[in-house]
Amino acid sequence: MLNKVNRMLPENVEGYGAVRPFAGAFQTLPDMDRYAPLVKAVWPGESKLIASIEEVFAKIGIKDGMTLSFHHHFRDGDYVLNMVLAVAAKLGLKNLGVASSSIFPVHAPLVDHIKNGVVSQISCTYMAGPVGNAIARGVMTKPAILRTHGGRARALECGQLRVDVAFIAAPAADDYGNLNGVSGPAACGSLGYAMPDSEYADHVVAVTDHLVPYPLAPISIPQTRVDYVVKVDAIGDPKGIVSGTTKITKDPVGLKIAQSAASVVKAAGFVKEGLAFQTGAGGASLAAAHFLAQMMEEAGVTASFTMGGITGYMVKMMNEGRLKRIIDVQDFDAESIDSIRDNPNHLEVSVSLYANPYNSGCVVNKLDTVFLGATEIDTDFNVNVVTGSNGLIMGGSGGHSDAASGAKLTIIVANLLRSRLPTVVDKVLTVTTPGETVDVLVTERGIAVNPRRPELKEKLVNAGLNVRDIHELKADAERIAGKPNPITTTDRIVALVEYRDGTIIDVVRQVMG
Amino acid sequence: MLNKVNRMLPENVEGYGAVRPFAGAFQTLPDMDRYAPLVKAVWPGESKLIASIEEVFAKIGIKDGMTLSFHHHFRDGDYVLNMVLAVAAKLGLKNLGVASSSIFPVHAPLVDHIKNGVVSQISCTYMAGPVGNAIARGVMTKPAILRTHGGRARALECGQLRVDVAFIAAPAADDYGNLNGVSGPAACGSLGYAMPDSEYADHVVAVTDHLVPYPLAPISIPQTRVDYVVKVDAIGDPKGIVSGTTKITKDPVGLKIAQSAASVVKAAGFVKEGLAFQTGAGGASLAAAHFLAQMMEEAGVTASFTMGGITGYMVKMMNEGRLKRIIDVQDFDAESIDSIRDNPNHLEVSVSLYANPYNSGCVVNKLDTVFLGATEIDTDFNVNVVTGSNGLIMGGSGGHSDAASGAKLTIIVANLLRSRLPTVVDKVLTVTTPGETVDVLVTERGIAVNPRRPELKEKLVNAGLNVRDIHELKADAERIAGKPNPITTTDRIVALVEYRDGTIIDVVRQVMG
Repeated sequence: MLNKVNRMLPENVEGYGAVRPFAGAFQTLPDMDRYAPLVKAVWPGESKLIASIEEVFAKIGIKDGMTLSFHHHFRDGDYVLNMVLAVAAKLGLKNLGVASSSIFPVHAPLVDHIKNGVVSQISCTYMAGPVGNAIARGVMTKPAILRTHGGRARALECGQLRVDVAFIAAPAADDYGNLNGVSGPAACGSLGYAMPDSEYADHVVAVTDHLVPYPLAPISIPQTRVDYVVKVDAIGDPKGIVSGTTKITKDPVGLKIAQSAASVVKAAGFVKEGLAFQTGAGGASLAAAHFLAQMMEEAGVTASFTMGGITGYMVKMMNEGRLKRIIDVQDFDAESIDSIRDNPNHLEVSVSLYANPYNSGCVVNKLDTVFLGATEIDTDFNVNVVTGSNGLIMGGSGGHSDAASGAKLTIIVANLLRSRLPTVVDKVLTVTTPGETVDVLVTERGIAVNPRRPELKEKLVNAGLNVRDIHELKADAERIAGKPNPITTTDRIVALVEYRDGTIIDVVRQVMG
Repeated sequence: MLNKVNRMLPENVEGYGAVRPFAGAFQTLPDMDRYAPLVKAVWPGESKLIASIEEVFAKIGIKDGMTLSFHHHFRDGDYVLNMVLAVAAKLGLKNLGVASSSIFPVHAPLVDHIKNGVVSQISCTYMAGPVGNAIARGVMTKPAILRTHGGRARALECGQLRVDVAFIAAPAADDYGNLNGVSGPAACGSLGYAMPDSEYADHVVAVTDHLVPYPLAPISIPQTRVDYVVKVDAIGDPKGIVSGTTKITKDPVGLKIAQSAASVVKAAGFVKEGLAFQTGAGGASLAAAHFLAQMMEEAGVTASFTMGGITGYMVKMMNEGRLKRIIDVQDFDAESIDSIRDNPNHLEVSVSLYANPYNSGCVVNKLDTVFLGATEIDTDFNVNVVTGSNGLIMGGSGGHSDAASGAKLTIIVANLLRSRLPTVVDKVLTVTTPGETVDVLVTERGIAVNPRRPELKEKLVNAGLNVRDIHELKADAERIAGKPNPITTTDRIVALVEYRDGTIIDVVRQVMG
């Protein structure tokens, strides 16, 4: 069957089940109740402190086939996922599911766990490094499931992702399971991605290296949803927690694109009091935010909020009075961690509040504009941020599709060429974010407006911006770099890309060789 | 059938159903999943602002037989419950359930709604004033259900109290349903009692008189669980919100009891670093906290936390460094409202976190000691705080049974005589808190220790406290005041008293005349 973005999908995928095809960004409505975990009781005097991960496995009775979940606030500095799976392997467990919000190069040992049959199912919102490569090359028997940040929260809350045991890496914890991310040697700031896991997993284990006297303050995840607390030597490497990509780009092409993107926001009429914007932590997105902030200063207006992954740049904007609130699911640097701890206008929120399409309204719905990247974008404005030019999995939506769906003005900022390959193509390898939710593409050679938005195109033209047809941009790119060779894949599906509502927007097929 | 506190109960009560008898404070384990409300979707551009309560009724389709819930942070200053029920009456609705966390004299119009058939079912944790009187006199056809604070959260989370529409009186709200209680003309501080309603009701309506630009900060109840926002002129009378009972007693007998109660804590060995205590907002309880604070100062120790309903007295203790954290479900005065807004060590929590027996561990479990009042206490240490000497309903457990069950040392502070009637009796009219969870009774004529705690009795005797048998205290009281005449009731059950786990600990029968 064909879905709404013209991808041919099987009706069933082995190891996944029936496929609900993507029907449009706002077409598939929920038809279920929330997932209802078992109710528990803990009486006075009972302790939650457990001496080791091994003991947790015994206490809960973790067995073959169960699904364990993890969160990625430590990014490439995470120790907990590997620590837990090493115990599972040692105990001889098989066929576990791993539902991590994201997977990084540090999680390379997962490849061996897959090969050895310890892990047979993986889902996440983003994967970079050896695990994504191995999956694209066919290491797993069951396909991986790639979700959006909001979609993962949805899947947990709606019972579509059933987690037996959530392991929460907690920078600070008390002995009764109150947790936060703002203190301790591995402080990471917001624990927003772990919140739905704590709410909907059947068992919840906190793993911490910083046990403080009861009661912890602030409380980001409450004791009412945490069954056990394990103290270990270290839960993460602070150097890996702080990402390296949180400085404004110095590349002149990147700066030009960023300047154009900010001009698009202005021309569209959004440089106004109360602007709500989101930007990634990448150098080009941050540069766009920088130029936008300059325009806001000139216009004498203040933004109502920004959100998503937060860097010191947003903190500086807030401290300078150019931004009223930060809504935060993830912190990328020390400045943002300090801010979320100390500034009451810097709000830690659940990823469900941030982006879940299936609740009474998430924050992306209130965005005016968002700057997002793209590995590829096609002439129908569909964006790929899942697979690279070699067909390997090197990313994932994260909050890409979520923010695009919510924002009134979604701007893709991208160099026209990436590693000498055109970014604009006829058909992206893997649709991640549907074109109907993308408004503008900004490149160093011009700005393309989605033909679904003629009124927007008119505004940008009237503002004197270099507006071009997306087919022209594609032709430019091909003139410079040549038409890229299509990637050859087998028919075998190695991953499904779930849109935020749980429908399938595309699949990833096994690469050759 | 007889329950564990020797109350004869029918197996079924009309209008309630099968009765699960109270089997002991820690005997009845949960056997259900959490309640799972319907999953919803709200797309970008949809508004939640509704012009009037009438329109909310139409929009949701509120109909005969539905249950509407309310919270009592405004106490006797609440306007919202009456406002909503007036609309229901005007629309001709019948047989509604009202699940308010508490009911106050201001809710007197409810009596007419009951008489007129608009309301046919009531549940709460406390009721004072005309409604309690009318119910005890038999105005309702179905019995009322009296729960504890933690028990109400349990009933909501476990699907035993099904709420169709929760009306949340919100001192501050944005247009997308983020709510808090710390700003606006009707600021009340914590919204802890309303949190389970917001989580588990099928529909949630915020009623506010203070609409602020999006996004509100702090967020106490998030937009993800709020379907509609209605702006009205006023949601409450600040004078009624601030209770009159938050000053330390000046009565010499009350002070003597308070001093003795604090001495009991010291003799029991709890005046130590990290002490966790709870006290009511009444004058005698506050006085006990005052003497306890003095002893802590002398000993050079700091309390880890206090919790429950909070007053300026606790705030002062925290600001003076004698107390590390306040865990807050309800604020009684302006000082505590200012503190919860401004002090990060003053934590707003859900009543489920505070006291629900059926989650992974509530805060009462961590209490060392609590000071509680009593209308009556019997020689088996069972306490009545539901019915008065005339048999009318004049209160309810609130957090009484919750705190008693959790604390290592539960102290009842009570004058031996109340309105010239003995407080210590053979058999209390209505068991609210079971004797097994009560350790000590402190009166002006001596201290009685529950015989279940011989080691505690020894400590108090060794400390030179005036320890007496509870039967002696009863005899003293009867010598002064005479033996009270038993209250005459009919057989008809007008209310059931649910213990925190949902079992029935006692019933209230209709009074004569």
